[in-house]
Amino acid sequence: MREAPTAPDPPDVPLAALYRAGLAESVHRGRYAVCDAGGGLLDSGGETGEPVWVRSSAKPFQALPLVVSGAAGALGLTDEELVVACGSHGGEEAHVATVRSILGKAGLSEEALQSGAHPPLNGAASRALARAGGSPRPVHGNCSGKHAGMLALCSYRGWETASYLDRDHPVQREILGAVSRMCGLDEREVLIGGDGCGAPAFALPLRSLAAGFARLASCAAPEPFGAAADRVRRAMGGHPFMVAGTGRLDTRLMQGAEFVCKSGAEGIFTAGLPDGTGLAIKVSDGSGRALEPAALSLLGRLGAEPLPEPDTVVRDLHGAEVGSLGTLV
Amino acid sequence: MREAPTAPDPPDVPLAALYRAGLAESVHRGRYAVCDAGGGLLDSGGETGEPVWVRSSAKPFQALPLVVSGAAGALGLTDEELVVACGSHGGEEAHVATVRSILGKAGLSEEALQSGAHPPLNGAASRALARAGGSPRPVHGNCSGKHAGMLALCSYRGWETASYLDRDHPVQREILGAVSRMCGLDEREVLIGGDGCGAPAFALPLRSLAAGFARLASCAAPEPFGAAADRVRRAMGGHPFMVAGTGRLDTRLMQGAEFVCKSGAEGIFTAGLPDGTGLAIKVSDGSGRALEPAALSLLGRLGAEPLPEPDTVVRDLHGAEVGSLGTLV
Repeated sequence: MREAPTAPDPPDVPLAALYRAGLAESVHRGRYAVCDAGGGLLDSGGETGEPVWVRSSAKPFQALPLVVSGAAGALGLTDEELVVACGSHGGEEAHVATVRSILGKAGLSEEALQSGAHPPLNGAASRALARAGGSPRPVHGNCSGKHAGMLALCSYRGWETASYLDRDHPVQREILGAVSRMCGLDEREVLIGGDGCGAPAFALPLRSLAAGFARLASCAAPEPFGAAADRVRRAMGGHPFMVAGTGRLDTRLMQGAEFVCKSGAEGIFTAGLPDGTGLAIKVSDGSGRALEPAALSLLGRLGAEPLPEPDTVVRDLHGAEVGSLGTLV
Repeated sequence: MREAPTAPDPPDVPLAALYRAGLAESVHRGRYAVCDAGGGLLDSGGETGEPVWVRSSAKPFQALPLVVSGAAGALGLTDEELVVACGSHGGEEAHVATVRSILGKAGLSEEALQSGAHPPLNGAASRALARAGGSPRPVHGNCSGKHAGMLALCSYRGWETASYLDRDHPVQREILGAVSRMCGLDEREVLIGGDGCGAPAFALPLRSLAAGFARLASCAAPEPFGAAADRVRRAMGGHPFMVAGTGRLDTRLMQGAEFVCKSGAEGIFTAGLPDGTGLAIKVSDGSGRALEPAALSLLGRLGAEPLPEPDTVVRDLHGAEVGSLGTLV
C-alpha cells in the first residue's frame, strides 16, 4: 500500500451541483469520455487517459468468460441469471433467488460465496430481513451474482473453488483477459487492486472503459467475445431489474431504453449505445448523487432515449423544496 | 429558487483522498480558514470570502439567545440540556431523554417539535427503535435539541410556538442577530435558506464562521453574548457526548480536549481553540468522510491537543486492507 507522493489533482470539470436557495452549496467535479468502438475519443471532459478504478462497471466484462467458455450454456443459465452476474443487485427477493439458482445449477451451496456480507442495498429488503430476525449473508450483498458467476465457471471447468478470488486463479486470469481485451488494452496495462467484496478491482483509462462499452453495445467485441458480448447486451437490455433493482439508477435508466449501462462505486457510470458509442463518467470525489444528473445530461447529448425526467428537487424533512440538484455538463 | 447562471467553480485546494492499492481513487477538494477573534485571517486554503451554507455549525450560536435571554437560567436548564440544543445528536437514549427534559421544563409536549422525523443517526439506536416496533419521530432527529431550545425560549418569552420556524418569528429574529453578531457581520450580510429540519439555514463567508468560533472559544464574544458564549463553550467542552454521540466525529475530537468543535451537513467543520483561534472547513463536494482527515491535520497544525490517531485504513468486507484515506492538507 503506497500513497501517491504528491497531491492527486486530476484536471476535471464541474459535473453537477447542489443549490440551496439559489446559492451553490456543493459542487461535484469529474471526467467523462465518449468513445467509438474503435477506441476513438469523440468527446470528453477533463483527463481521460490516466487509470481510474472502474469498480462494478467491469461486471458485464467479468461475466463474459462464463458465456464464452460454454459454461452458461451447459449449465442452462437463464438471461436473468446472466444479468444478475453482471449486476450490483439490491438484495431483493428475486435477486437473491436468482443468485441461489446459479449456485444450484453449478452444484454449489451458498457457503461457497466469498463475497462478504452486507445488508441488502434495497431499504425495504434490508428492513424485511431485520424484521424476520435474519442477519445479512454474502448472498444478500450486491456482488453475490458476480461471485456466483465466477463459481459457476469454476464448477464447469473443474477448477477448485476455495481460492477463486486469488488473482492467479484461472477464473481471475480469464476475467482479466476479458476486461483487458474488451477495453482494448494489454493485460499489463490494467492495474489490479482489491474491491470491497474481495474480488480483484481494475484500474484503466476512462476512455478505454468507454470504448469497451461501445464494443459491448454494438456487436463490435473482439473475438472470441463477439457472441458472448451480444448475449450479455441483449440479456441486460431485457432484464434491467437484475442489473440493480427497484428505484436504482441503472434499472431506471434502462427501463424501455435501447442502451445498456452499469454504474460502480466511487462515482463510476458507464453506458453503451447501439450505434456504437460508449460513455464513461468518473466523479472525482466518488459521489453517487452526481451520477444521475451527469449521466442524464450526457446520455441526452448522445441521443439516447427514452430518458426519465431528472428529479432535481431537494426537499426538507417536511417535503418543502429547499434546493435543487442540477447538472453542469 | 434560482439556479446560478454559471457553473460554480470556487477556487479550492485538495483536502483528502481515498487511495486504492496506492492509486488515488477519489479526491475531495475544499476550502479552509483560520481566523483570530478579531476577524484576522491567519491561514487559509482556497476562497474564504464568499458565502457558504454553514448548516449545523451555526447551532452553538443559535443557542445563545436561549441563554442571554435568561430563559436557560429561569427554566433551570442543565449544561447537558444546553449542549443538546447546540448539537446534532445521534438519537441515542440519553439524547432523546435530554430533549424531552428541555420540553418538559418549558411546559411543552413533544408534539410542539416541528423538526421533522428521521431515524436516529446512531445505528444501534435506529435498530433498537425498529426492533421495538417504533417509528422515528421528530424527537429522534439530530436537530431536535436545537428545536427544543427554540421552543423553550418561546415559552419563556410568551411567544406563540406554532410558527416558531418562520423567519419573522421573534425567536428566529433573535437567532439571526446572534449568528450575525458572533460572526462579525451585519444581518443583511447573512443569506437565509431552508435547512433539512425546516429551520432557517445561514450562508456567510467561511472566514467569518472561523472568526465566530474563535470568539466563542476565547471569551471574546461581542456583548451582550459574552457570558452566554462562555457558558456554551464550557458546557460543550464538559459534555461532548451531547454534541453528537457515540463514535461520531465531534464527540471523539472533543473527548478530553480543550477546544470546542461542531460539524455540519455537506462537509462543514468548525472549531474554536482557547487561544482565540477559529477554524472553519468546507468540503466543496459536501463529503463527510473528508472532514476527519482534514480536521485532524489542520487542528494538529494549530497545536490542538490531544487529538485521536486518524483511522486511515480502508478495508473490504472481509476486513482486509484495500486502501487508505489520507489528508492532503
